[in-house]
Amino acid sequence: MEKIKAGILGATGAVGQRFVEALANHPWFELTSLAASERSAGKKYKKAADWRLDTPLPESVAELEVVPVAPSKVEADVVFSALPTDLAKEVEPAFAKAGFAVASNASAYRMEKDVPLVIPEVNPEHLNLIEIQQERRGWDGYIITNPNCSTIVMATTLKPLMNFGLETVQVATMQAISGAGFRGVSGMEIYDNVIPFIGGEEPKMETEPLKLLGKFEGAEITPANIKVSASCNRVPVIDGHTEAIWATMREAPTPEEVKKAFLNFDPKLGNLPSEPEKVLVVREEENRPQPRLDRNVGKGMSISIGRIREGIRYTAMGHNTIRGAAGASVLNAELLHSKGKL
Amino acid sequence: MEKIKAGILGATGAVGQRFVEALANHPWFELTSLAASERSAGKKYKKAADWRLDTPLPESVAELEVVPVAPSKVEADVVFSALPTDLAKEVEPAFAKAGFAVASNASAYRMEKDVPLVIPEVNPEHLNLIEIQQERRGWDGYIITNPNCSTIVMATTLKPLMNFGLETVQVATMQAISGAGFRGVSGMEIYDNVIPFIGGEEPKMETEPLKLLGKFEGAEITPANIKVSASCNRVPVIDGHTEAIWATMREAPTPEEVKKAFLNFDPKLGNLPSEPEKVLVVREEENRPQPRLDRNVGKGMSISIGRIREGIRYTAMGHNTIRGAAGASVLNAELLHSKGKL
Amino acid sequence: MEKIKAGILGATGAVGQRFVEALANHPWFELTSLAASERSAGKKYKKAADWRLDTPLPESVAELEVVPVAPSKVEADVVFSALPTDLAKEVEPAFAKAGFAVASNASAYRMEKDVPLVIPEVNPEHLNLIEIQQERRGWDGYIITNPNCSTIVMATTLKPLMNFGLETVQVATMQAISGAGFRGVSGMEIYDNVIPFIGGEEPKMETEPLKLLGKFEGAEITPANIKVSASCNRVPVIDGHTEAIWATMREAPTPEEVKKAFLNFDPKLGNLPSEPEKVLVVREEENRPQPRLDRNVGKGMSISIGRIREGIRYTAMGHNTIRGAAGASVLNAELLHSKGKL
Amino acid sequence: MEKIKAGILGATGAVGQRFVEALANHPWFELTSLAASERSAGKKYKKAADWRLDTPLPESVAELEVVPVAPSKVEADVVFSALPTDLAKEVEPAFAKAGFAVASNASAYRMEKDVPLVIPEVNPEHLNLIEIQQERRGWDGYIITNPNCSTIVMATTLKPLMNFGLETVQVATMQAISGAGFRGVSGMEIYDNVIPFIGGEEPKMETEPLKLLGKFEGAEITPANIKVSASCNRVPVIDGHTEAIWATMREAPTPEEVKKAFLNFDPKLGNLPSEPEKVLVVREEENRPQPRLDRNVGKGMSISIGRIREGIRYTAMGHNTIRGAAGASVLNAELLHSKGKL
Repeated sequence: MEKIKAGILGATGAVGQRFVEALANHPWFELTSLAASERSAGKKYKKAADWRLDTPLPESVAELEVVPVAPSKVEADVVFSALPTDLAKEVEPAFAKAGFAVASNASAYRMEKDVPLVIPEVNPEHLNLIEIQQERRGWDGYIITNPNCSTIVMATTLKPLMNFGLETVQVATMQAISGAGFRGVSGMEIYDNVIPFIGGEEPKMETEPLKLLGKFEGAEITPANIKVSASCNRVPVIDGHTEAIWATMREAPTPEEVKKAFLNFDPKLGNLPSEPEKVLVVREEENRPQPRLDRNVGKGMSISIGRIREGIRYTAMGHNTIRGAAGASVLNAELLHSKGKL
Repeated sequence: MEKIKAGILGATGAVGQRFVEALANHPWFELTSLAASERSAGKKYKKAADWRLDTPLPESVAELEVVPVAPSKVEADVVFSALPTDLAKEVEPAFAKAGFAVASNASAYRMEKDVPLVIPEVNPEHLNLIEIQQERRGWDGYIITNPNCSTIVMATTLKPLMNFGLETVQVATMQAISGAGFRGVSGMEIYDNVIPFIGGEEPKMETEPLKLLGKFEGAEITPANIKVSASCNRVPVIDGHTEAIWATMREAPTPEEVKKAFLNFDPKLGNLPSEPEKVLVVREEENRPQPRLDRNVGKGMSISIGRIREGIRYTAMGHNTIRGAAGASVLNAELLHSKGKL
Repeated sequence: MEKIKAGILGATGAVGQRFVEALANHPWFELTSLAASERSAGKKYKKAADWRLDTPLPESVAELEVVPVAPSKVEADVVFSALPTDLAKEVEPAFAKAGFAVASNASAYRMEKDVPLVIPEVNPEHLNLIEIQQERRGWDGYIITNPNCSTIVMATTLKPLMNFGLETVQVATMQAISGAGFRGVSGMEIYDNVIPFIGGEEPKMETEPLKLLGKFEGAEITPANIKVSASCNRVPVIDGHTEAIWATMREAPTPEEVKKAFLNFDPKLGNLPSEPEKVLVVREEENRPQPRLDRNVGKGMSISIGRIREGIRYTAMGHNTIRGAAGASVLNAELLHSKGKL
Repeated sequence: MEKIKAGILGATGAVGQRFVEALANHPWFELTSLAASERSAGKKYKKAADWRLDTPLPESVAELEVVPVAPSKVEADVVFSALPTDLAKEVEPAFAKAGFAVASNASAYRMEKDVPLVIPEVNPEHLNLIEIQQERRGWDGYIITNPNCSTIVMATTLKPLMNFGLETVQVATMQAISGAGFRGVSGMEIYDNVIPFIGGEEPKMETEPLKLLGKFEGAEITPANIKVSASCNRVPVIDGHTEAIWATMREAPTPEEVKKAFLNFDPKLGNLPSEPEKVLVVREEENRPQPRLDRNVGKGMSISIGRIREGIRYTAMGHNTIRGAAGASVLNAELLHSKGKL
């Protein structure tokens, strides 16, 4: 089988490097273009990127020359975007117009009516927006997006609760520093400390789930009728967002019923390469999940749940730069391909 | 003025050392007895205690000989108890019976009907239980207690909300490791990690506030009619518990009204030595309070509040081993003394 | 090929779990016995061990029943010992006498004259002591040992310097907390801190290299004529010991010559399963090696070197519980097997 | 007594804030001018500075308006400089020329022949260079400097060793992140990590002590005839540099003799306000000094020493932004004033 050519927009940053890691030895995709800022363009990737992952930089990628973030410079069928919001806003439509499939981790277009905001295990049918988007905008390509990292961890656990008549959600997050990029949080700020604020995070957690859990009807998404209230905190953890969640449901299920719903949640995606064996892993121990011990479960693509109790209250945890970012976009693209849309 | 003789039960641990720090140069109290386990008894305090605070061990205390935890060995008018629960259960009544005033940070007797559970700024009138306790139990002395560290931080902020008809509270804590004592949490457990469970903590946070915010009527406390739901987490912070709180109130005040209630909260204790200038400090910045920056406000006796917003949601933070433990007991004893009860 | 039966003594602790990780899917060894303290014996391993690695507990191991640390209870050809020193002192000879090959990470017998202390890349010929040991002690089995974790990192880098006439070594270590076991260092001790002392560590670093770099002549080891002076420090790092090393050599090589010696160091072990592609990895960047980024190089079996400069000074770093402990013992056993001695 | 007017150049950064803390309630100095970059100038200090210390921002300072870093805008007799090197290079001479006494923590002029590089307890007589500097340069004011933070900790301990004929020094540092300023080291870089390189640090540690320990003879400093070799490392500690030191001396003193020399080291400065009771504090415990426990000894102005042993080896630790920076400059100015030179 010939591989699909894949590019990365914003290839040198924290999420960009996770894209490289995910795509370097991918069975379906071949990494053909690494695009980054003018400062990096023209350099070999190993020089342009200060590789910060604890897995070695793949040799096949190290020697690739970084190109500018421009459709004419990138050779690929699909591009994965780890661009900052403002740049994504400008650049992603240019790529879509030029015929690229854009699988974006950026927030710029997530809430646009005709742009799919997708977690494969939650709302794969929203991909149907692609045709509407292409028609409406006259694009050969298109943009699909995945949610914010902290939204993904929470919303995936909310999906099986929809059957109980989910009404309200309250969530307090304890988020890892990698979510802010390599230089986003200084050591002096976060060491021996908690920062009870993350710019823009709470609005995302309070709006994205409504679209994600909404219904594709006619040619649009009817948002779910739920209310989310979020308090977002940064804690001294490298990777892995931990979330304390309260959920009220019309049918008032018992903790045992909720646990069963999590255990039985088994979306069939068709053996996508990045799909974990279990997307929701339920832990029985009273002191799990923990980010340092559980973030790599399912190669970072599983979400661990524990402490399900009256309230309903529980704790969810997932790897923010894999499940919550690069891995999410790659899984979206795999889903597209499996449906023949790539 | 002659000083009141004070002893410490459990003087060598994390809270015991905070008691030493608080009492070594106290204007009203004179540290006369340091009691600890058999292993420590007979040694000089500087040898018995592995002094772990970043303020120097007071010289006047360093040379004191540690005595066993027994009424006959302790010379004092008031004893401050930092004993573990099971030991406190056994020993504190013996001290009360022997005529000591026992100001306890232990949880053993907090919820007993005739034992005051007091935060001076919240429910000083509950001290009236002392006489009932003495009569009922036939004790010359008595036991008074302060709440659990995470309860103190939360309940003090709830007091001014009672006027709005407080109904429900949800709280997710991010608690410091000093709360578990010097060796309670290993480095391998907590570094680069969050532990979403603290044994016994959630039940305390869910029951103690009802008594604290209850009314002293007739000869007993009628618990407040509120419901608290807690999720307690340990984070890699040395000192300072941070709490994300949701509170619903019958009168549904605006964030601005809630803020005013916090600002106007000004319990008059009468210039007690450990009383902070302001017990509730409201921060305007969007990213405060933070434990590393705000835990020492008011010499560790103020509680900092920030991010008051629709919900009502806000973040509270206080020093867990000062405001939440040793300082709480000392302030209780100061209040007793100011009322002529010591 | 039939696999060699392998047991682990002290299977539940920090090093024991690394042994499990290393042996669970080993091409030559089959994990047949997990031995631990009386408290654990009789339980399934998944219950007995609080699994703390970020790789999942291998399923094949989870259900094994833990046995007591006694030769009659362990079924294996080779046993890997992660026992504490005092217990190792007592138990390891019993296993050797009973015919087991004992590959020990414990320090109890490292400096015994007839016990090989081996790093395969440094002094494989010292394994010849085995026959002398068996003859002298009348054992059917035998004990072989690997050095202390911080010694391994340093001594492996010293081996290629012997050709320059190594004379003196000074080393300041910055050691990870996993080296003290799961509960060895409390969070309150190490967070935001450096502890400039590790019990017993400096004597080991100052004596073990002399034996390691010594010559097997006649029937014994003549220690190398070098002098090592060590200052050992604990720092807030999970895994990976970093060492600042000064080495003086009779021939006074230039940094460039030293670098070449490191680059050319290529001991041929014969493709042992745990052998890294390169045992010494030289980094060119001015700010490497770093434990978080480099500890997993060569699956944790490579030692990274950087900052080679006048002095001669350089920095070495290796994974303390893999290269410095469990992996070291396993590599020793692989070497034995490849030489037909197992 | 009328107070001396003091200004701070670079008042908003990590060292600038320590200057504010040191000067806000100083018995001799009155803080009259806070100068910072154009971005800050014109704002009130509480707005311009993101106050990051755990002591509260002094109210008297909060309302001061920040002025530009220009002699014409600053009203003061003495200015304390926390400027970055390149800016200091340009600006400090302008202030000296304009008649200000400049007490600088910047490295720009430390090694100039006619600029005193002074630790009051080590080489107060070097202040005699001031007259030579003024004469040579035709300045009404002058520049005096203090050494780099890691040099101060080490060099102060070397002073009493000079009497034994100090010859060589090797030092491995474990330096706190505050030394790089508030945003100098990112959380992703330093958490769970050691960085074995600090730009420019080793050359400073290897040259500054020679001047500091040199003799003022005729009209210049004859450098001490010693050789220093440094390996500088960054570790995850907020404040406090720890240093493992080896020192060889012609007279080869015993550890006990070295300890006595430290204990007897008692430079008389004449009760300067910032002078600690003891500049060198010798610890007897085998695991001290530790930054978290000992950095605040002597209000951050003492240097703690421990583990003196054969070699001669020992560990020294001091607060890098107090003793090693702001406090050092302030103590220098106090010394100047006590000698009537301000």
